[in-house]
Amino acid sequence: MSDKVIRVGMMGLGTVGRGVYRILKENGAGIEQKVGARIEIKKILVRDLEKNRGIDPGEGILTTNISDLIENLGIDLVVEVMGGVEPAFEYSLRALNQGKSLVTANKDMIALHGKELFEAAEANGSDVLFEASVAGGIPIIRPLKECLAANRIQQVIGIINGTTNYMLTRMHEESLDFDQVLKEAQSLGYAEADPAADVEGYDAARKLAILSSIAFNTRVALNQVYVEGITHITAEDIAYANELNYVIKLLGITKETDEGIEVRVHPALLSKKHPLASVNDVYNAIFVRGDAVGDVMFYGRGAGEMPTASAVAADVMSAARNLLRNVPGMISCTCFEVKPVKPMGSTLTNYYVRLNVADKPGVLAGIAFIFGDNEVSLASVIQRHTAGHSAEIVLVTHEVLERNFQKALEAIKELPNVYEITSVIRTEG
Amino acid sequence: MSDKVIRVGMMGLGTVGRGVYRILKENGAGIEQKVGARIEIKKILVRDLEKNRGIDPGEGILTTNISDLIENLGIDLVVEVMGGVEPAFEYSLRALNQGKSLVTANKDMIALHGKELFEAAEANGSDVLFEASVAGGIPIIRPLKECLAANRIQQVIGIINGTTNYMLTRMHEESLDFDQVLKEAQSLGYAEADPAADVEGYDAARKLAILSSIAFNTRVALNQVYVEGITHITAEDIAYANELNYVIKLLGITKETDEGIEVRVHPALLSKKHPLASVNDVYNAIFVRGDAVGDVMFYGRGAGEMPTASAVAADVMSAARNLLRNVPGMISCTCFEVKPVKPMGSTLTNYYVRLNVADKPGVLAGIAFIFGDNEVSLASVIQRHTAGHSAEIVLVTHEVLERNFQKALEAIKELPNVYEITSVIRTEG
Repeated sequence: MSDKVIRVGMMGLGTVGRGVYRILKENGAGIEQKVGARIEIKKILVRDLEKNRGIDPGEGILTTNISDLIENLGIDLVVEVMGGVEPAFEYSLRALNQGKSLVTANKDMIALHGKELFEAAEANGSDVLFEASVAGGIPIIRPLKECLAANRIQQVIGIINGTTNYMLTRMHEESLDFDQVLKEAQSLGYAEADPAADVEGYDAARKLAILSSIAFNTRVALNQVYVEGITHITAEDIAYANELNYVIKLLGITKETDEGIEVRVHPALLSKKHPLASVNDVYNAIFVRGDAVGDVMFYGRGAGEMPTASAVAADVMSAARNLLRNVPGMISCTCFEVKPVKPMGSTLTNYYVRLNVADKPGVLAGIAFIFGDNEVSLASVIQRHTAGHSAEIVLVTHEVLERNFQKALEAIKELPNVYEITSVIRTEG
Repeated sequence: MSDKVIRVGMMGLGTVGRGVYRILKENGAGIEQKVGARIEIKKILVRDLEKNRGIDPGEGILTTNISDLIENLGIDLVVEVMGGVEPAFEYSLRALNQGKSLVTANKDMIALHGKELFEAAEANGSDVLFEASVAGGIPIIRPLKECLAANRIQQVIGIINGTTNYMLTRMHEESLDFDQVLKEAQSLGYAEADPAADVEGYDAARKLAILSSIAFNTRVALNQVYVEGITHITAEDIAYANELNYVIKLLGITKETDEGIEVRVHPALLSKKHPLASVNDVYNAIFVRGDAVGDVMFYGRGAGEMPTASAVAADVMSAARNLLRNVPGMISCTCFEVKPVKPMGSTLTNYYVRLNVADKPGVLAGIAFIFGDNEVSLASVIQRHTAGHSAEIVLVTHEVLERNFQKALEAIKELPNVYEITSVIRTEG
């Protein structure tokens, strides 16, 4: 046994906190060997001392007083697993300003207040590690910051929300509708009672802001991320996508272009040949393209007690190693450039459009004319008679400028024989 | 610009060496920002000073004298990209003993002489980094050593040879035979004139020995790896596999069991549902199962000038960071345990067997009896009449003990109505 000890204070003892506690306990011997010191949890901040959490940290470990951690000279390292922005941010900042290193799993806090945290860490010579904030247990932050650091990253595309990926997988496999799979996901505990953060894409947007900032060495703020959720995706769209050799996925996409950084979360028809296309159920994956490495992908569980705790515990080990050698802050914030974010209207993408139209000659011609007039060229067209006197037209465009496409769509909406523009979804890959 | 400089000596200027040179040059500004120092290649060891390599490192950089690097007090860090075991090993050891850090892409050297190199590094307080030695540009060594370090790793399964994966993909997609795709792979430069290292599994075995050692914190020697190549795989086997919902892949498999470490390279029928099943062409992927993180997978190009150079350059950046802060050797060899390797006969796997038999009643019964007698139970059976008086039987077993299975096979070979045991391939996943 090593005679060195790294003393940890943990803020929060919910799902992830219990996972971290368990890993540090159960795998403690191996962790000690690898780090060269014992890692001991000395204080845990909770709201309720009496609550039964199924673990017993021992006498005097639990506290409801944040000062017991932050102003405790005996604590080297603070682990923030309470979630939410406040008071997590206030406490984390205080801990950094006391010279402690910080490990966090909190995507909301990093996406909103990363800048302040990194500045405080730099001023105090501390570490801020946050691998668990994106894609749970999947290594992605450290690979981007270290393993792929010699590359110019060109794009990062991620399936970074497990709830929506589960739902879309079920819709694909069972031809179910959105409302049905949402209920199913809620009953399985994959979706929350208020599912907005997941199905509207906000959760993915927070993670994408973090990934984009790291990939391109520039700070991308949450409000710069274009966000569109999956609530309008139907079983029919998924069936058409399948016929056209696509699957529909909620993607977080960020690319560096000459006109700035693209950063957008939206559902997309993804070619079945793309490595992300076979990522199903609650699994997450992040696809990275670098100028030297080419395409790499990282796959695994993006949430859950133990996967998330795996990432937190690894960061604790790294921070502990740095503390032991007096080199916290070795790899600090990498946002050393300032790059503009490209306006959404300037984005180039392909589109899938489904329309309900009058089943008459010339309708398709009218639509095609308007697209052509707006420099939108078509890659494929399916037209099918449906009930009564109406028909369904499904179009996939070549690459188009977002603002041209939207203009064409406005004009098409006004055509007397176009009853409804049923679906408009981007395609990728 | 930073006033700090890390001085690099590079041994070798072949494909990977040129790639490293290019990355450090072309992405030098970003690399300098991230590291906090300029990285300058001061000396490059080559065999022929006059050869045209398409790059011009400048006056006095190229040398044919190894002492110009190793005994040069101005060199902080040696990059070994010459390949082969000797003289790479002798030079690397000398460099470490001069207190220099070492970055290498050399799987042969690490698989055979890792122990001596790590001991020398430890004695001299230096780094030995070798990310590029396994799976080219795909981050896997650092993720195992750091990102997943809090886990007990349970298994690692890899497609870690691009040549054979390309060949098997082509056999699968085009129903081609081994000899045909080998010629094709050779003409494309994916396979060498003497393809043994790839198709016999030796290349994969070296990488697996390295992965197994890191995953299980114990030294696994190359001669402990069971190796079987793909030369006996036929288009017929691939077609049967497909019918049974499998693909055939050359896998490197290592697992920790109560009786020791399993470590084996062989072709296997892999369930189409396994994340590795959709890894095609020259791509590599490594699937890792940890007790906390669950299943994660790392995917990308396992070879080539720039992907391999991407990993080397990232290791150079890490080693440089450590040198700047005077902490080389922070993460040293992790083989702090001694675990036995399990004898192959004690391995539990499933098998696919194809036999050419007389088309008579009772033949299948005779085969099934022998399997049953040896505790081999069958999961599925296909029997088909072929030409003349013969039939083909395809069996898939449940999990069996290797030695029982081999015993049964010996007995079945002796049955008068069994003309030939055409194929015997393990299954996985």
